[in-house]
Amino acid sequence: MSLPERRYVITFGCRDRTGIVARISSFLAEQGGWIVEAAYHTDPTTNWFFTRQEVRADSLPFGVDELRTRFTEVARDLGALPGSWRVTDTGERKRVVILVSKDKHCLYDLLGRVAAQELDVDVSAVIGNHAGMAGITRAHGIPFHHVPFPVNDPEGKQAAFAQLRQLVDAHEPHAVVLARFMQILPAELCADWAGRALNIHHSFLPSFVGARPYHQAHGRGVKLIGATCHYVTADLDEGPIIEQDVIRVDHADSVTDMVRKGRDIEKVVLARGLRWHLEDRVLVHGNQTVIF
Amino acid sequence: MSLPERRYVITFGCRDRTGIVARISSFLAEQGGWIVEAAYHTDPTTNWFFTRQEVRADSLPFGVDELRTRFTEVARDLGALPGSWRVTDTGERKRVVILVSKDKHCLYDLLGRVAAQELDVDVSAVIGNHAGMAGITRAHGIPFHHVPFPVNDPEGKQAAFAQLRQLVDAHEPHAVVLARFMQILPAELCADWAGRALNIHHSFLPSFVGARPYHQAHGRGVKLIGATCHYVTADLDEGPIIEQDVIRVDHADSVTDMVRKGRDIEKVVLARGLRWHLEDRVLVHGNQTVIF
Amino acid sequence: MSLPERRYVITFGCRDRTGIVARISSFLAEQGGWIVEAAYHTDPTTNWFFTRQEVRADSLPFGVDELRTRFTEVARDLGALPGSWRVTDTGERKRVVILVSKDKHCLYDLLGRVAAQELDVDVSAVIGNHAGMAGITRAHGIPFHHVPFPVNDPEGKQAAFAQLRQLVDAHEPHAVVLARFMQILPAELCADWAGRALNIHHSFLPSFVGARPYHQAHGRGVKLIGATCHYVTADLDEGPIIEQDVIRVDHADSVTDMVRKGRDIEKVVLARGLRWHLEDRVLVHGNQTVIF
Amino acid sequence: MSLPERRYVITFGCRDRTGIVARISSFLAEQGGWIVEAAYHTDPTTNWFFTRQEVRADSLPFGVDELRTRFTEVARDLGALPGSWRVTDTGERKRVVILVSKDKHCLYDLLGRVAAQELDVDVSAVIGNHAGMAGITRAHGIPFHHVPFPVNDPEGKQAAFAQLRQLVDAHEPHAVVLARFMQILPAELCADWAGRALNIHHSFLPSFVGARPYHQAHGRGVKLIGATCHYVTADLDEGPIIEQDVIRVDHADSVTDMVRKGRDIEKVVLARGLRWHLEDRVLVHGNQTVIF
Repeated sequence: MSLPERRYVITFGCRDRTGIVARISSFLAEQGGWIVEAAYHTDPTTNWFFTRQEVRADSLPFGVDELRTRFTEVARDLGALPGSWRVTDTGERKRVVILVSKDKHCLYDLLGRVAAQELDVDVSAVIGNHAGMAGITRAHGIPFHHVPFPVNDPEGKQAAFAQLRQLVDAHEPHAVVLARFMQILPAELCADWAGRALNIHHSFLPSFVGARPYHQAHGRGVKLIGATCHYVTADLDEGPIIEQDVIRVDHADSVTDMVRKGRDIEKVVLARGLRWHLEDRVLVHGNQTVIF
Repeated sequence: MSLPERRYVITFGCRDRTGIVARISSFLAEQGGWIVEAAYHTDPTTNWFFTRQEVRADSLPFGVDELRTRFTEVARDLGALPGSWRVTDTGERKRVVILVSKDKHCLYDLLGRVAAQELDVDVSAVIGNHAGMAGITRAHGIPFHHVPFPVNDPEGKQAAFAQLRQLVDAHEPHAVVLARFMQILPAELCADWAGRALNIHHSFLPSFVGARPYHQAHGRGVKLIGATCHYVTADLDEGPIIEQDVIRVDHADSVTDMVRKGRDIEKVVLARGLRWHLEDRVLVHGNQTVIF
Repeated sequence: MSLPERRYVITFGCRDRTGIVARISSFLAEQGGWIVEAAYHTDPTTNWFFTRQEVRADSLPFGVDELRTRFTEVARDLGALPGSWRVTDTGERKRVVILVSKDKHCLYDLLGRVAAQELDVDVSAVIGNHAGMAGITRAHGIPFHHVPFPVNDPEGKQAAFAQLRQLVDAHEPHAVVLARFMQILPAELCADWAGRALNIHHSFLPSFVGARPYHQAHGRGVKLIGATCHYVTADLDEGPIIEQDVIRVDHADSVTDMVRKGRDIEKVVLARGLRWHLEDRVLVHGNQTVIF
Repeated sequence: MSLPERRYVITFGCRDRTGIVARISSFLAEQGGWIVEAAYHTDPTTNWFFTRQEVRADSLPFGVDELRTRFTEVARDLGALPGSWRVTDTGERKRVVILVSKDKHCLYDLLGRVAAQELDVDVSAVIGNHAGMAGITRAHGIPFHHVPFPVNDPEGKQAAFAQLRQLVDAHEPHAVVLARFMQILPAELCADWAGRALNIHHSFLPSFVGARPYHQAHGRGVKLIGATCHYVTADLDEGPIIEQDVIRVDHADSVTDMVRKGRDIEKVVLARGLRWHLEDRVLVHGNQTVIF
């Protein structure tokens, strides 16, 4: 990403109470930690507290593992559940696997951002259920795998998903991006990749769930169309929303025009959502997200 | 509106074929008609043609009634159905009746626009099912009627709607504006006021139909909230959409914040939709609208 | 504003160093202070630190004066300059004076927001260099003063500004709002009201400084027009920007259309800027603002 | 582009008078021409009339050359100046030459749109004053030319421009796209490519003309940044504006963040402007544009 120097990022959530900020910031101050960016949020409905802190790595006399070890005690004191906090290191390069089908725009956009170093990550692999994007992927020096998904063949499809999982999991990616991947992930993959699998849906959810959302939008005569980046869950198009945006359309726009205009929104919404995810800016809270 | 000089406005729709524009524009040219603004649209799905033309009144040697009479022949030649075209006169001042409940922002906004002559119409009356807005309405020199709608009393409610209809119809308004009026109109009123009754719904339809849309939006964790101005039909929140817009929200916004931010969108969306309706810029086509 | 319960708000800025957050949050935690909202920012260019904290009043065993006294020591420890921090009490109702000329839309909009309790402040007075808005102001139960500003009469103008200042200062307002007030404030008034006088300029600054910005925008053929809310300084239209927004226009829009469309942006930009100012969310840093 | 069947496009401008639409539409109707899309505009300030018409090629009994010949008479009757009207054929594939420097995002974006057939044109060549984008260009099967521009060597620079012109003109392109090309074109090139050379400037013009606009924007503390696609003229950043858009920034955004966010706007603004130009939707009128 655009982080100028190495930083450690703490994301943390627990039941709200007095003194949490004091406890965390005093802990950091005692170690000499220089906080470069800090954000807080309390959800008054659930009385839950969230924070994200960026600390300059060179301000601490130890590394990320030691920070994590020491922070464990802080988290315990504040009653945080295991899994509700994390300490990451921007010095560790993030790995991304991209799943595609036939639509090219999101993949081309992501590859362009990576090539321009705007998105400073490793794309470990691109996996397509069609072979059409092998060429451009390899031109970027990235491995491409073709995993065909047979139609009307449940067993064949299951085998394809097994192969897909193996190819993805081999990279232990920080993000699995469904860049207009047209297959619905089985529930167990959703569970295993929970919080790491991001989808781009080509509507302003919750409007127009499911297939052919631009056709649905055209039929309803809406005046804006949108796109939604969300975490994948077993409930189709129902996962926590990370980012959304819209673009204006009018009566002169055919479905084809909507598809074209919508692509520009899909690309930026997916790119923003992915960036925030990889920068550990997205904290999931039930079916909602806190974006720091 | 902001029309600088008197104009006649023709809105017209018929099955598409070659020569419609030539027929209409030649008819106008023969009379010396100076077209100030013209717009065309063909819906390729239904093969239907639409146009709206603004002609300077002083360029024609006769008045609006004669223009209407003469245009009848053009419309007949082109196979237009009765009711699918209109000729109006911007010299005739438009009359509007506004229905309100307890929420003040849309009424205040419309009254402010009328007072500033931005919306150059006659507000014939404001009718509220609560009395709270009598004062400001009358301060603007506009009659206010209080029509209480009893709860859990179907007969009383029916009587209230009868009274409402009488009060509204007495003005033969060009627009009946449901400015956050919290009563659902009976089907027969929807039918009688078809194409003249405009509602503002506080969500980006078709998301969050019905009650408490901001609560629904907050629960779903959307990143934008919106508002929709649409013609009222017997199907709640399903009528042809005239205008929509959205505003960004984030995790820090409570439902109360969403209600507040949403109001700014409701106001402009309603004001734009009403303006376009009164300027005869909205042509209904099935459940969609063409906005010229 | 929409603050549900009484809160104390601390805004603070000082040279950045390690441990500021720890010092402030520990201070608050020691007193039992329950932080409801907190925001931080460090400007890397100037190495300056900013924070805003909202504390529940009922979580502290003393009042705002005692909090202010005790916080003085914290501020001194952190090397904050006098005037670079403040402690305010949302229980103290904010007072606003509005200056107007002939354009009605911003005044009507603000009065509507106050009447709907969306903006929960006291409008102490409205002062106009024309008398046209006396009626609506008084209908809202607010005093209106007419202070004519003579043309081509420097002494008369000076006297008018003296009268204006007296009328304004009598209320010791938290905000002096130039709601399309068409007089340029003298430098000494700018100085005396520094950080409290807000102007709405009808362009997207720094484009189209000065007179008739919509005419300038139309002449240049821009595709979006905007509005800017900024603090008034002695340099015309050059003060720190609080908020801006834009709306799309096209070749069919005349200057008159731009004026009308622009009003909707002016109203919301001014209303947002004023709200943030009154909620102590705006920290000025040189010629820039930090909005928490 | 996305035109489903072959069409002839007429763009036309002349002094406004009664009967222009009738004359053009009757001419087309007499030939059996099926108008698929039509737009009109009259500029009331200059009293100038503009239109654009799309006619189905298969509805006419002759080809584009004959249509052009026959339309010449119509144009003469209406007093149109030579050069103020055109008849083009969507069946003729458009040729584009792209000029680049070091910034990759606009080139990658355009190549992606062409590869996805969203932009259905021939990129005849990419010419760079640095060699860095040879690889990706050639991976798309497009010729890349490296033309170095020496610094502090006026003669060398002149020679480079001569080479550039030769390379470009060899393709007789419909559009020369300066996709963040960092050289200022000499006046004679601006003249020769007038109405065909499109630039993307990374600010919301007329704000922040010239070098390092994001630095200028950051320094002024604006709350939105933008991009502008305009025709190149001899006056730097002063040519007719085709399209603009903006994106929100805040105090937390460094110049680097602004550069990154701005890219997303630059890409879509350039892509939209180029599409409209190639679809003959842009009519220049003095220093303004009419976009149909």
